[in-house]
Amino acid sequence: MKSPFMASLASRLQHSVTPNALRSYFAEFLSTFFFVFAAAGAAMSTRKMMPDATSDPSSLVAVAVANAFALSVAVYISANISGGHVNPAVTFGMAIGGHISIPMSIFYWISQIFGSVVACLLLKFTNQQVPTHGIPQEMTGFGAAVLEGVMTFGLVYTVYAAADPRRCVHAAIGPLAIGLMLGANVMATWPFTGGSMNPAYSFGSAVVKGSFKNQAVYWIGPFIGAAIAGLVYDNVVFPAQVTESLRGIGGGIVVV
Amino acid sequence: MKSPFMASLASRLQHSVTPNALRSYFAEFLSTFFFVFAAAGAAMSTRKMMPDATSDPSSLVAVAVANAFALSVAVYISANISGGHVNPAVTFGMAIGGHISIPMSIFYWISQIFGSVVACLLLKFTNQQVPTHGIPQEMTGFGAAVLEGVMTFGLVYTVYAAADPRRCVHAAIGPLAIGLMLGANVMATWPFTGGSMNPAYSFGSAVVKGSFKNQAVYWIGPFIGAAIAGLVYDNVVFPAQVTESLRGIGGGIVVV
Amino acid sequence: MKSPFMASLASRLQHSVTPNALRSYFAEFLSTFFFVFAAAGAAMSTRKMMPDATSDPSSLVAVAVANAFALSVAVYISANISGGHVNPAVTFGMAIGGHISIPMSIFYWISQIFGSVVACLLLKFTNQQVPTHGIPQEMTGFGAAVLEGVMTFGLVYTVYAAADPRRCVHAAIGPLAIGLMLGANVMATWPFTGGSMNPAYSFGSAVVKGSFKNQAVYWIGPFIGAAIAGLVYDNVVFPAQVTESLRGIGGGIVVV
Amino acid sequence: MKSPFMASLASRLQHSVTPNALRSYFAEFLSTFFFVFAAAGAAMSTRKMMPDATSDPSSLVAVAVANAFALSVAVYISANISGGHVNPAVTFGMAIGGHISIPMSIFYWISQIFGSVVACLLLKFTNQQVPTHGIPQEMTGFGAAVLEGVMTFGLVYTVYAAADPRRCVHAAIGPLAIGLMLGANVMATWPFTGGSMNPAYSFGSAVVKGSFKNQAVYWIGPFIGAAIAGLVYDNVVFPAQVTESLRGIGGGIVVV
Repeated sequence: MKSPFMASLASRLQHSVTPNALRSYFAEFLSTFFFVFAAAGAAMSTRKMMPDATSDPSSLVAVAVANAFALSVAVYISANISGGHVNPAVTFGMAIGGHISIPMSIFYWISQIFGSVVACLLLKFTNQQVPTHGIPQEMTGFGAAVLEGVMTFGLVYTVYAAADPRRCVHAAIGPLAIGLMLGANVMATWPFTGGSMNPAYSFGSAVVKGSFKNQAVYWIGPFIGAAIAGLVYDNVVFPAQVTESLRGIGGGIVVV
Repeated sequence: MKSPFMASLASRLQHSVTPNALRSYFAEFLSTFFFVFAAAGAAMSTRKMMPDATSDPSSLVAVAVANAFALSVAVYISANISGGHVNPAVTFGMAIGGHISIPMSIFYWISQIFGSVVACLLLKFTNQQVPTHGIPQEMTGFGAAVLEGVMTFGLVYTVYAAADPRRCVHAAIGPLAIGLMLGANVMATWPFTGGSMNPAYSFGSAVVKGSFKNQAVYWIGPFIGAAIAGLVYDNVVFPAQVTESLRGIGGGIVVV
Repeated sequence: MKSPFMASLASRLQHSVTPNALRSYFAEFLSTFFFVFAAAGAAMSTRKMMPDATSDPSSLVAVAVANAFALSVAVYISANISGGHVNPAVTFGMAIGGHISIPMSIFYWISQIFGSVVACLLLKFTNQQVPTHGIPQEMTGFGAAVLEGVMTFGLVYTVYAAADPRRCVHAAIGPLAIGLMLGANVMATWPFTGGSMNPAYSFGSAVVKGSFKNQAVYWIGPFIGAAIAGLVYDNVVFPAQVTESLRGIGGGIVVV
Repeated sequence: MKSPFMASLASRLQHSVTPNALRSYFAEFLSTFFFVFAAAGAAMSTRKMMPDATSDPSSLVAVAVANAFALSVAVYISANISGGHVNPAVTFGMAIGGHISIPMSIFYWISQIFGSVVACLLLKFTNQQVPTHGIPQEMTGFGAAVLEGVMTFGLVYTVYAAADPRRCVHAAIGPLAIGLMLGANVMATWPFTGGSMNPAYSFGSAVVKGSFKNQAVYWIGPFIGAAIAGLVYDNVVFPAQVTESLRGIGGGIVVV
C-alpha cells in the first residue's frame, strides 16, 4: 500500500514526462538558447567592433536592446508551450506560487542551463571570448545581489502580470512587456552588475569561460527576488479568488 | 445630522481605503519605482561608461529608450489595477476630468513620490550620484516649463486616448503608445529640459541629491499641461456621451 | 435649380464642417504637432550634445527611433478620430483612392502644416536652430525625389495595409507598423535625403528657418509615391469587392 | 489519359497563376524590396556619416534596429496576402513542411530575389557602394554558415510559431516577434557573419556589387536551418492534429 505522499510524488513525476512536458523542456531549451545567443553575442559584437566598447554608451544601447528583443521573442515562441519562462528564477517564482511542480521545475532548470551553455559554446565560432557577468571594483557583491534581486522581482512580477486573467485587453503584448522590463533594467545596470537577472545565462557563460567568480550573486539575488514577486502577486495584488484554469502565459503547466 | 457635503466626503474617503484602493496605491508605488529606477539608472550607466556622456548622442538614445521601455511596462503591470498612472501629473489630469477622486489622487501622489524616492535611494548601491533634471544656461526656466507642459499635455492626452472606449481595435497596445510618447519626447528634449514630464521622478531624484533647483519647472509645467489635456479630451475630442463604466486603462478607479 | 455637380459639392462641403470633421482637423493638428516636435527635436538634441553630430551614427539612431516612436503614437492617438494620417502625402494617397473628399483633404493639409509650423516654433524655446531637410552635394535633387517617393509609397502602402479589413488578426499593431516603416526608411536615408516622406514636416521647418531650398523634392516625390500606393493597393492588391464601411484606420472619414 | 502525377503537377501549376497567387508574388516582391532597402540602406547611412563606421557600436545598433523595424513591417504588410515570408529560406522552410507547393515556392524565390536586386539598384541613387555580407579573417566560412544556419532556424521557427493556431492570445504581435528575432540575431553577429539569414538579401547585394565571394555561406546555412526548423516544429513541437485550414500567417497559401 502506497503512502499518500508517495502517491502524490509518483503522480507529479508522471506529469513530468508526458509528451507535453517533454515539449515544454524542449521549448525552454530553445528559447533560452536564442536569448543567451543574442544577449551574449551582442556584447561580443560591440567588443569586436571597438576593443574599448565598455567605455562607449552605444554598447549599452546595443546590449540592452538585444536583451529586450531576444527575451520578447524567446517568451513569444514558448509561451503557449512551456509558459515562456526562459529563466530559472522565473521558474522558481512560479514554483513558489504553486503554478509548476518541483519535479517539473528541476527539468525546466536543466533545460534552461543546457540551452545557455550550448549558446555560449556556439558563440565560440566567432573566435572571441564569451563575456561573463561581473561587478566593478567600487561595488560590493552584496549591493550587486540586491540590485539583481530587485530587478528580478520586477521581471517575475511582470511575468505574473502578463498571466493575470483580468488583463484581457492588453494580453496580446505580454511577451513584449516582459522583454521591455528586462531591457529597461539592463540599460540601468549593465556597467554595475552586468544586468543579468537570469542565473542560467550567468552560469552558462561562466561554464564556457571557466570562471565562476561572483556566481553566487547571480543566483541568490534573483531567486529571492523571484520568490517575493510570486508571493506578493498571488497574495497581495491578486488573491486567488480566480480559478487556476484561467491563467495563461507564465503559469506554465499547472500542477494537478 | 450630517450635511450632504460631509456625507459625500466621508463616502469618498471610504472609497480610498478599500482593499482595491490599497492595491492601487501599491501598484502605483511599484510601477513608479521601476520606471524611475530604469530612467535614472540609464543616465547613471552612461556616465559610468563615459564621464563625458552628455556630449555623446548615444547617451540620449540610451536614456530615451530606457524611458520608453520602462514606462510601457510600468503602465502595463499596473493598468488593470490602478489605471497605470505612474506620474502625479497623469493623476492630476485624471482628477481634472473627474475620473479619480481628490482623496484617492492624494494617495496616488504619495505612492508615486515614495516609489521614486526609494528607487533613487536603491541606485546609491552603485556608488554613483543620482542625476537630477536640469536646464542648460541658454534656456530660461519659463521656456523649460512650457516645453515640459506641452509634452505632458501629449502624454496625458495619450493616456486618455488609450482609455477611449471607441478605440477597440488598437486597445491592446495602449501601454506601448504611452511609453513611446514619453520616449519620443525625451529624445527631443533631454539636453534642454531633462525630459521629465513626471514631477515624482524630478522630486525623488532631487530629494536624494538634496538639491531642489528648478523644481518648480517640473511641477507647474506638467500640471498645467495635464489639466488642459484632460479638459480637451473630455470636452472637445470625446464629449461624454459614453458612460464612464466603459472606460478602461487610464481611467483609474472611478468615483461613485 | 442646382446642378448635380453643385449639389454634390455643397454636400461635400457640409461634410467638411460637421463636429466630427472639425474634431478630425484638430486631431490631425495635434498628431502632426507631436510628430514634428519629436522628429525635429531629436535632431536638435543630438546637435546640442555634439556639434558634429552628423558624423556620428548614434545621431542616426536617435533620429530614426524618435521618428518611429513619434509617428506610431501620433497615428495611435488620432486613428479613431481622423484616420491618423499625420502627413499631407498620406491624405493625398487616401484622396486618390476616394477614401476622403477633396474639400476635407484640404482642411487636413492645412491642419497638418499648421501643426508642423507650431511645433517648429515651439522648439525655438531651446534657442537652437530648427533643422531642415537637405541633400548632400554628391546627390541630385532628382535622385532625392525618387528615394523620397519610393519611401512614401511604402509608408502609404502600409497605411492602406493597416486599414485592410482582411487583416483581422494583426489589426491591433497597425499604428506601430506605420511608425516602424518610417523609422526603417529614416535609418536608410537620413544622411542622403533627410528621410522626410512628409511634406508638412519639410515645409514647417523650412517656414521657421526661412529657407525653402529643395522644397519641391519633399512635395513632388512623396505625392507621386502616395498616389501610386493608393492606386496599387485598391486596384491590384485589394480590388474593391469589400464595402467601404469595413475600412477602419487610415480610411479616415468616408465620403458619402 | 493523364497520369496522376502529371494531373497533380498541372493542378499545382494552375494554383501558381491564379490572381491570388500573382498578388502573393507581388506582395513578396514589395516586402523584400522594402526590407532590403532599409537593411542595406542603414549600413550605407552609417558609412556616409563616419567612414570608419564598422568600428563604432552605434552602427551595429542602427543596422540591427533597421533590420528589426523593416522586417516587422515587411511581414506585416504581406502577412494576409502571401504569408509574409520576405526570405527564400523561410519559403523553403514552409515548403519542407508542405505548407506551400514547390512551383509556388519558385515564384516566391524569384519575386524575393528580384525585390532585393531592385532595392540595391535604387540605393545607387545615393552614389555610395552597396555593402555585401562578408566574414572577417579570423572566422571560417564553415563557422559563418553554422551561425547563419542556427539563426535562420530561429527565424523560421518564429515564423512557424506565429502561425501556430494555439497562439490565440498573442497572435496580434506575430510580425513584431519575427522582426525582433532578426534584430536580436543581427545584434549578435553583424561583425562576424554580416547577420543575413536571408539569401535574397545576400544575393541581391552581391549582384549589384558584382562580387559573389562567400555567397554559398548565405544559401547553404540558412536553407539547412530553415528545413530543420520546419521539420522540428511540425513533428516535435506541434504534431499535425490540427487541420491546416487553421493556420494563418506564415503558412502562406496552402497546397490543396
